[in-house]
Order: sequence, then structure tokens, then C-alpha cells
Amino acid sequence: MKVVTAEIIAIGDELLYGQIVDTNSHWISQELDLIGVKVVRKTTVGDDRKDILAAFASAEARADIVLITGGLGPTLDDLTKPLMAEYFDCPVVENQAAVKAVTEFFQKRGREITPLNILQGHLPVCCTYVPNEVGTAPGMWFERNGTYWMSMPGVPHEMKKLMRDFVLPKLPNLFSLPVIVHRMIKTVGIGESWLADLIRDWENALPSTIRLAYLPSLGQVKLRLTGFGTVKSEIEKSIQQQIELVSPKIEPYIYGYDSETLEEAIGKLLNQHNKTVSLAESCTGGYISHLITSISGSSSYFQGAVVPYHNQFKNELVRVKNDTLNAFGAVSEETVTEMALGVRELFKADYGLSSSGIAGPKGGTAEKPVGTVWIACAGEDFVETKKLQLTQDRMLNIQLTGIAVLNLLRICILKK
Amino acid sequence: MKVVTAEIIAIGDELLYGQIVDTNSHWISQELDLIGVKVVRKTTVGDDRKDILAAFASAEARADIVLITGGLGPTLDDLTKPLMAEYFDCPVVENQAAVKAVTEFFQKRGREITPLNILQGHLPVCCTYVPNEVGTAPGMWFERNGTYWMSMPGVPHEMKKLMRDFVLPKLPNLFSLPVIVHRMIKTVGIGESWLADLIRDWENALPSTIRLAYLPSLGQVKLRLTGFGTVKSEIEKSIQQQIELVSPKIEPYIYGYDSETLEEAIGKLLNQHNKTVSLAESCTGGYISHLITSISGSSSYFQGAVVPYHNQFKNELVRVKNDTLNAFGAVSEETVTEMALGVRELFKADYGLSSSGIAGPKGGTAEKPVGTVWIACAGEDFVETKKLQLTQDRMLNIQLTGIAVLNLLRICILKK
Repeated sequence: MKVVTAEIIAIGDELLYGQIVDTNSHWISQELDLIGVKVVRKTTVGDDRKDILAAFASAEARADIVLITGGLGPTLDDLTKPLMAEYFDCPVVENQAAVKAVTEFFQKRGREITPLNILQGHLPVCCTYVPNEVGTAPGMWFERNGTYWMSMPGVPHEMKKLMRDFVLPKLPNLFSLPVIVHRMIKTVGIGESWLADLIRDWENALPSTIRLAYLPSLGQVKLRLTGFGTVKSEIEKSIQQQIELVSPKIEPYIYGYDSETLEEAIGKLLNQHNKTVSLAESCTGGYISHLITSISGSSSYFQGAVVPYHNQFKNELVRVKNDTLNAFGAVSEETVTEMALGVRELFKADYGLSSSGIAGPKGGTAEKPVGTVWIACAGEDFVETKKLQLTQDRMLNIQLTGIAVLNLLRICILKK
Repeated sequence: MKVVTAEIIAIGDELLYGQIVDTNSHWISQELDLIGVKVVRKTTVGDDRKDILAAFASAEARADIVLITGGLGPTLDDLTKPLMAEYFDCPVVENQAAVKAVTEFFQKRGREITPLNILQGHLPVCCTYVPNEVGTAPGMWFERNGTYWMSMPGVPHEMKKLMRDFVLPKLPNLFSLPVIVHRMIKTVGIGESWLADLIRDWENALPSTIRLAYLPSLGQVKLRLTGFGTVKSEIEKSIQQQIELVSPKIEPYIYGYDSETLEEAIGKLLNQHNKTVSLAESCTGGYISHLITSISGSSSYFQGAVVPYHNQFKNELVRVKNDTLNAFGAVSEETVTEMALGVRELFKADYGLSSSGIAGPKGGTAEKPVGTVWIACAGEDFVETKKLQLTQDRMLNIQLTGIAVLNLLRICILKK
């Protein structure tokens, strides 16, 4: 089977000057890898006619698919559209559907449309117009001599929607792609090398048609199993067998599989056990509540949260005793215990969660340095607490605490 | 003055398959930008002889400086060194200093050295050996026909050390570099094309030594002014003059300059006016509170927040009247008004902020479709409200509401 190749071209001076990180190319790489398309090159060029045209020409000479992001705004420094028209040698004209879409985009939002915006509906005649439902710059699809081109806006969520809705479903119809199956085992609360130690024998005995990758992210490690073959159902069966072999070895750390996030897994668990949760967040400042409520349907198990940033409100809102605050301080096992019990009561929830710590970068002491965090989970007849010793970085400390609190809740639910 | 150009080539299959994010290229871009070297292209290629040699050849045709990262490991799939030898047509031989350095590297760490590792001290004879003090793969410096090449390991801290210690200090001696100054004007609450309309005359009259770029992100647009010249203080003065010319035209939308974020600007404003803030977040579920508390020092102006996700708690915690909830619903101007007033009272804050909406993707009605959000800001003697009509995407709606609420607070503070 011929390997199907792709190139990614990111356009924009701001990418070359290092003012914006190009996260698009990385995301596109991952998505193409999942469907068996091989990315052979990524190129970033500035807003320069000659450089852009040269990148187009060399990509066409090499790749079956060329994916272009950026340079589609309404202003003069955005060159992608006129240069694609030049490269494909066809004029830019009004596209009625595209003009209608951009006009409606503004009407729906009650905003006035400018002549510049209307021009976003003018497209090279030789392209297929691909509607962009979440932005004003349309996608443009071109075909020439067996190479397929897609131009997309550089705004990540607009690009992703066009990829998901249009490009990724279309490619398997244009090319004969190999059959690849990916599965993911998602773990939390254990580091990469400990995980590797636990599953080494299993890993060494994996068949050659299945590849394993460790994908660590903040506080979590994902195990990706990739199977290759010709018959999808057979690959799926063989991967499933391996998952069943390895899962018992690391069961306490597995919170989910495949695309499931920790927040989703927590929501599913709470729903399954018909339980509700509430939070008193001090050092995390609302972040954990945000994680939980980022899941659609969370209102069935999330009662509410308070962020009592000062001792006064820890006392007034969630009934932490002033004696406790005075004797042990806000960052202490005693305080997070009373916060968790108090917020459980306040919101009449089955579980009360709490966090209090020194997020930094200032505010540390010898006894409680920056990165010291206490967390707690209160249930009907227990309180579990945990001390974390984290980093010097404020945002990292907030995020790591969030994952630790969600994992503590997971462990508490499963213990019952 | 001739513009000095650079290209960055990142080598490695793992970068193309999306398993590793290439943070090196971004960092190198920023560093080169600061010393006035113009990055004209970034290329990522896999571990493939033909692709790598093609990337070398096209880089040499375009750039004064070629910076290469990756492909320097001791294993067979690492091709950078043999291919640079091939490209520069000179043999790889033992370099005594390099072999000594790699041997000592292992000795110091009490690790045994393998024959493969010793080979890392063998280098193309036509390169200058650049010691890598923090790793085993040496840097290699080449010069040919006025183009300068540096090959560095892909491990970020090794690459950064070689850049800082060797490449960045060396470039100003090889080239006459221009002086470049960047400044940023940060706006919120206005789209790119409206902004462009407001400042068109100014933009058209910009001197040729100053370039303007529009950098849109979620709910915000940044204006970047880049000035070129020979004397730094003069460029700075000339950019400052342009900033003073354009700022009055878009004053209501400017929240800050340069690296300042919206959250930081809000914090600065509150501190300047000696005011405090509190939040009652429904549809944003703690996200805005998280934004505010992500800033170190926010405890001086942030009192606290509540997330009353259900009507019961909107009533019990922030005193929204049940009559109001029954008559107008949770997503209404009346409800967010009472929430803002109630939370201001609860936390004894100068400002009370609130949000209530249908974040989606479910829960919309004909009258209040997904994306309908009401926000409010209550002060001592006023309540400002605003209705937003956003998207179908839950996370996007939460983020856009967050920016709108922070901007509403900014406007309320400035009005006083």
C-alpha cells in the first residue's frame, strides 16, 4: 500500500517572530497520524509573497495533501487567499454562499458588518467553498494533479472544526489508508517510570503488531496502544485482549479509557453512584469548580462551590472555626478538613472537597514553603486529607492541585 | 542595511507524528527576533536522508544562518551528523576534545560509557566543535559561502545553553544587525475589522520604519508595532509617538500594553482605585474566579466567589428572590442583577460580578438558545448588565463570558 503523505504549512510573521506558539501543526500531526496519513514536513513561513509561493510549490512536489493554516484575516497583511488564487491561476470573485454566511455570522451576533468582512466571502473560483461555522474566514479546498489542498484560518478552534467536520472525514474517501487502531489507557496518581516498572513484563511480551507509547501530561500518564493490520475488527480484538491483560496490574490508577477526561470520569462515577459534590477552594481559586463544570450535564452532580479567599470568609461561609485558623493557619490539615465538612453541609452535597495552599510565587515560609498544599474530601462518615509538596510555579501548582483533588474524590467514591 | 535572515530546521520523526511538541523553534525565534535576525522559515523534517538533505539545500539558498535541532542521538535513526558531513563533503573523524568531553561526562555521573557514546565525539572535519556541557551530543558549527550553520541537540535545555553561550553572542560579530523594537497595544471588546476601520488613516500614514500587525485571540486583538533602525532609543521614541497618536482613537478598548494580560490589567486597576471584587458565577462555574486568582497578589483585591449552580443556592447564598427566579428564569437580566448585588454584599466587596447563561451544548430553548448569557457588574450605586449571544461550544462560551465579565468590570471601574 502506498504511503499517503501530507505537509503542513503555517503562515504568519507572528509565528516566525515567536510571538505566537503554533499549536495547530502539532494538533494536525496527531490527527493525521491517527488515520494513517504520514506527515513528511511542517513549514512555517511569514507574510511574504515569494516565501509563501515557494512553500506551496515545494509542498506540491512532495505531498498528497497540503494543509495550510493562517493568513486568512480581513486585513492587508493576510496573503493566503490572493496567493492561492495566484498559485492556482484563477481569479477571486464573490461567492454568494460565502458572502451570505459571513453576513449571517455578523447578523446573528447583532454586529454591524464592514466592507472588509464582506470581502471574506470572495473566493478563488477554482476552490471549493467550505463553510466555517465558528468564524468569518471560510475554508478553501483545492485539487490539482492528484494533490489535495485545504486552507484554514489560524484560529485554533476554527481550524479544528474545519478539520473535524470536513478534512478528516474526507481523506479516507480520497486515499486508500492503512488500518490503524488506537486505544488509550488513562492513569492518574502515578509517574511514568513507576508505571513502566509495573507493566514491564507485559510490555516486553507485546506482539509486534501492537506498539506502546507513554504519553505523560500534567499529573497523568496515558498509555497508547497502536495496532496495525488489514482487518479493523481483528486489530480491535487483539488490542482489547492486551488491555485486559495489563489493566489488573495498574487498576488503582486507571480512571478511564480512550478520549475520556478525568473530569468526565468523575462525572460518570458520581452519576453511577447517584452522588453530588461541592467545593471550598482557596488556593485553587475556582479552578476545580471550572474543571467540573466544563462537562456538559455536570448540573446533575455539581451542587456549587465557594472560593473563600480570606480567613474571614472561610469562617463565615464554610464555618471553619477561628480557633482552628489561629492555631494551625489557613494552610493546614485541620483547616481543609473543616472546609470540606462545612461546604458539604452548605450545599447539602454527598461530598465536600477543599484546597488550601501557598500557590506562590510569593508567600512561602520556612515551615510552609511555596508549593505546600493541603486538600480534603469529606463524605457522610469520613474525611480523607492529603498534603502535596508542589513546585515554585503558581499556575502549575493550581493545575496539579486540581488533578490531585479530583483523584482524591475518585478514590473516596470507589472506597465506599 | 541588509536584513540578516535565519532558518530553523527541526529534525525528528517524533515531531512530525505529533508525539512531541517542538518548543525549540519557538524559543529560537524569540531569541533571534530580539537581536534583529529575521527568521524567514521554520521547517520540520523526519529522520529521512532525502528530506533532510533537501531541507539543507533550500535553507542554504535562502538564509544567512541555518540553525538545526535534533537528530544527534547515538542511535542509527539519528542522521543529522552523517548527513551534514555528506552535505559539506567532508569525512567524520575522531575529535579528541569531543571524545574527551563525552568520556568525562559519563565519568562524572558514574555511568559506564558505551562504544556508541564514544562515537558522539567523532565529528565532520570541516566543522568547529562546540562543547555541550550539559549533554553528550556536541554542537557543530559550519561556514560556507557566507552562510553559517549550527547543529544542536533537540533536548531543550542543551540547545538553549549552546544558543546562549555560543550562537547568540557570536552572531553580532559576524553580521551588522539592525536594531528592532516591538511594542504591543492590547485591546478587548472590539473585533479586528472594526479596529482596523477605526485606525485606518493612522495605519496608512505609518512611517516605513514601523510595521503594524493585528494579532487576534479569543475576544481580544493585539496590535503589534515593530520598529526598525540603528539607534534603539530613537526607535523606541518613534514607536511611542505612534502609540500616543493611535491610542486616543481606540482608547475605550485598550486595557494594557506589551506583556500585560487582561487579568493583570484588572488587578492593577483595582489596586490603583483601592477597590475589591467578588463574583457569583453560574454558567462560568468558577472560571472567572480562576482567571483573577491566577495572578500573584490577587488576594489584595479579590474577596471571594460563589458558584451557585442551582436556583436554590442562587437564593440561599446570594439572595436572588425566588419571585425573580420564577418570573424571569435563572438566565435573565433580573437574576444576574440580584446575583451581582447579593455577592457584593456577601463578601463586603466594592464590586459584585455575576454570570448566568446557557453554556450548552444542551439546555437551549427557542427563546433562550444555547449561547445566551447575561452578565452584570454591581457597584456602590449602580448595576451594569449586558446580554451576550455566543456560540454552540460550551468551553468557548465559558471563556468568552469570562473575558466579557472582566471587560465589564474594567469599564465600570473607569467610569467612576
